[in-house]
Amino acid sequence: MGKTDWKSKAKALKKKLLKREFSAATKAKAKPASPLAPAAFPTLPPIRGVEFAAVEAGVRYQNRKDVMLVRLAPGTTIAGAFTRSTTRSACVRDCQSKLGIKTGATGAAIIVNSGNSNAFTGKLGDQAVAAVTGAVAEALSIPPSRVFSSSTGVIGEALPFEKITARIPDLVAELGEEAIKMAAHAMMTTDTFPKGAAATVQGDGGMIHIAGIAKGSGMIAPDMATMLVYLFTDAKIGAGPLQKILSRNVDSTFNSITVDSDTSTSDTLLLAATGQSDAAAVKGPVLRAFETALHGVMRDLALQVVRDGEGATKLVEVRVTGATTDEDAAKAAFAIANSPLVKTAIAGEDPNWGRIVAAIGKSGAAAERDLLSIRFGEVLVANNGWRNPDYKEEDGASYMQQQELLIHVDLGLGKAQRSVWTCDLTARYVEINADYRS
Amino acid sequence: MGKTDWKSKAKALKKKLLKREFSAATKAKAKPASPLAPAAFPTLPPIRGVEFAAVEAGVRYQNRKDVMLVRLAPGTTIAGAFTRSTTRSACVRDCQSKLGIKTGATGAAIIVNSGNSNAFTGKLGDQAVAAVTGAVAEALSIPPSRVFSSSTGVIGEALPFEKITARIPDLVAELGEEAIKMAAHAMMTTDTFPKGAAATVQGDGGMIHIAGIAKGSGMIAPDMATMLVYLFTDAKIGAGPLQKILSRNVDSTFNSITVDSDTSTSDTLLLAATGQSDAAAVKGPVLRAFETALHGVMRDLALQVVRDGEGATKLVEVRVTGATTDEDAAKAAFAIANSPLVKTAIAGEDPNWGRIVAAIGKSGAAAERDLLSIRFGEVLVANNGWRNPDYKEEDGASYMQQQELLIHVDLGLGKAQRSVWTCDLTARYVEINADYRS
Repeated sequence: MGKTDWKSKAKALKKKLLKREFSAATKAKAKPASPLAPAAFPTLPPIRGVEFAAVEAGVRYQNRKDVMLVRLAPGTTIAGAFTRSTTRSACVRDCQSKLGIKTGATGAAIIVNSGNSNAFTGKLGDQAVAAVTGAVAEALSIPPSRVFSSSTGVIGEALPFEKITARIPDLVAELGEEAIKMAAHAMMTTDTFPKGAAATVQGDGGMIHIAGIAKGSGMIAPDMATMLVYLFTDAKIGAGPLQKILSRNVDSTFNSITVDSDTSTSDTLLLAATGQSDAAAVKGPVLRAFETALHGVMRDLALQVVRDGEGATKLVEVRVTGATTDEDAAKAAFAIANSPLVKTAIAGEDPNWGRIVAAIGKSGAAAERDLLSIRFGEVLVANNGWRNPDYKEEDGASYMQQQELLIHVDLGLGKAQRSVWTCDLTARYVEINADYRS
Repeated sequence: MGKTDWKSKAKALKKKLLKREFSAATKAKAKPASPLAPAAFPTLPPIRGVEFAAVEAGVRYQNRKDVMLVRLAPGTTIAGAFTRSTTRSACVRDCQSKLGIKTGATGAAIIVNSGNSNAFTGKLGDQAVAAVTGAVAEALSIPPSRVFSSSTGVIGEALPFEKITARIPDLVAELGEEAIKMAAHAMMTTDTFPKGAAATVQGDGGMIHIAGIAKGSGMIAPDMATMLVYLFTDAKIGAGPLQKILSRNVDSTFNSITVDSDTSTSDTLLLAATGQSDAAAVKGPVLRAFETALHGVMRDLALQVVRDGEGATKLVEVRVTGATTDEDAAKAAFAIANSPLVKTAIAGEDPNWGRIVAAIGKSGAAAERDLLSIRFGEVLVANNGWRNPDYKEEDGASYMQQQELLIHVDLGLGKAQRSVWTCDLTARYVEINADYRS
């Protein structure tokens, strides 16, 4: 093949790839919401001391807002939780290092872009994070160590950070308390709906508000579907207790969901408390009520991510009780929730409990055939080492037709338990992910 | 709803379920072979002291042979390897207990049925195994402790063992050295082709022959696609060394393949050595040559199982080198090979190396961004913490169009390495497994 042939072939291929990219971006805009989506985005209360803005920077997507900025008032305390991936992105590493820095009561900010995850982009990735967070710090007159950033989208492409820094003046000009839904939109990649949740707690001398937004669709898909979560409250609470509460509630919420068992390089959860509520500093019973409310918001957002799981048609809770240890309960629950065979059976509305038996067996959790039991909702399917003699296949088949399902396994050995949430595995999931770089 | 309504509804549902079962069984017969299937079943040499027979017993499937029997001559030594599932089947537990029993130089036998795995069937399951192996022992005048059995098929249904025991006289009458291909056929469930492999080794004073058959399609799918492997040789070798050689070679062959990460309750591998070769007892260089040949047969059969992976269109070797420990090499290799996102990208012929980065990151293996490298075949895709500057997307895209692929990750940290084999994840996989109890 001559040089010209090769060049023209390469050019044609590039054109084809670009076309695919464009069509993927267009499809992302046009695609219908998940059948499991909530009816509407909830009304979120403004949180004093928190302002939002979103703009169209053209990082990758066209004709939609793709960068959002949050300004946090002076005195805001911040807590975080992150992916444990060893190949986590430059912005995740940057956030983690900044959370450890003791700073004065200055303002703070969060800037997020979609379309490019700035992961596995070498030294250039670190430089891009420094450029973006530095520019925000300068525009808002706060220390760079108080500016947190996230990026979500394709891995391994240099982040065109100038496109973001060029729009910072516009972002700052547009900051307002009401733009939280727009911010939730700007973070979306393969998401089919923006995710929000809120709660209010009676504090000592006034109300305390919590509002949160999230993106994610394929928990934990490294490509275009990383999970990002930002929670805001006007509670008065120190950074230490804030981090403790957050860490205590991550395992039972965002670490209890799985769409496809693939962990992202970019998962980021930030919780900011501005302290601007009229209520006194949270403590005692108010602290407990605050934690309960926060847990509710976190759980709500976590389940919304599963509801937006790529190709999902069913929301499934896998509840394991009677385990010997917490670790065993988690092992068994995730083995079931991640099993392609269990998930495809659910897609087919097949009450295929044999696949659940097999998933328990491979999980590594202590289990004994004659002690474990399996229920679909209230329907007792198997116990005493075999199918329940009263179980009727049609009862299982009828239960599986519901959109929200409970698979309950009792191991009959101890008192530890764990619930995790997953969705079914459909041909649509394969289509979405086999589609070239979509 | 009145009682009559309910009854007629239940009846209609039952009819529908039966129809689905029937259609599944019919489809199983009619489906075309995997595009990755070998051109033909190989010619396997007869192994002196080994005879085969297969009959139609109607355990579940109709109009096909579904039970096979192997008679092994007096003096045969036997080694085995089994699933580690805690919910493994009654026959697996029975095989494991029998391998530990010291017996005289009596004959031995293996009996296998397809269509029903006799797993999670409580005490009845144990009784069925005792009935089947007892009947074979009586018919062949050998101790029951020398009769090994396997069952593969649906979980949690009582094995209609009388259908099997009723055909044992016919099986015995039909035993012959040539029927090995028929035996391979009789074990098939969702398999699209029978699997066989053979090797010959120059021994001391004569030739040593090895022949093996396997079934499996979805490695390790608990429903209808359990992996069963039977290897036969006329080598003279004691049970102790035989077990050692087998155990040494299982990790790099049958424990290095994954179709869907789901571990079966029934996986069974048996290796029988009749000692009837003209060659002297294997030792020294012949022992090493024998082990090499055996490894080749095991690897060949293992890859045939991946080639018959449910819905597979690509055979992929994931090779991880430069790991700190063997465990880390395995962790990284399996994280890539089991990642739904990597596997769907392969189905879409998308050189999506970002998903490989993410899989390494989640694997738990020690990894450093700036030291690892990723290659598609010979194409260097990423190193030094970023995409290789000379890498062209069209080179990756062109490589991915091949039917057999190598993904090579060097972690750049140590000397440990591991190769595992997998296939792509296609919409067809979901269809096969979402189909009601197919």
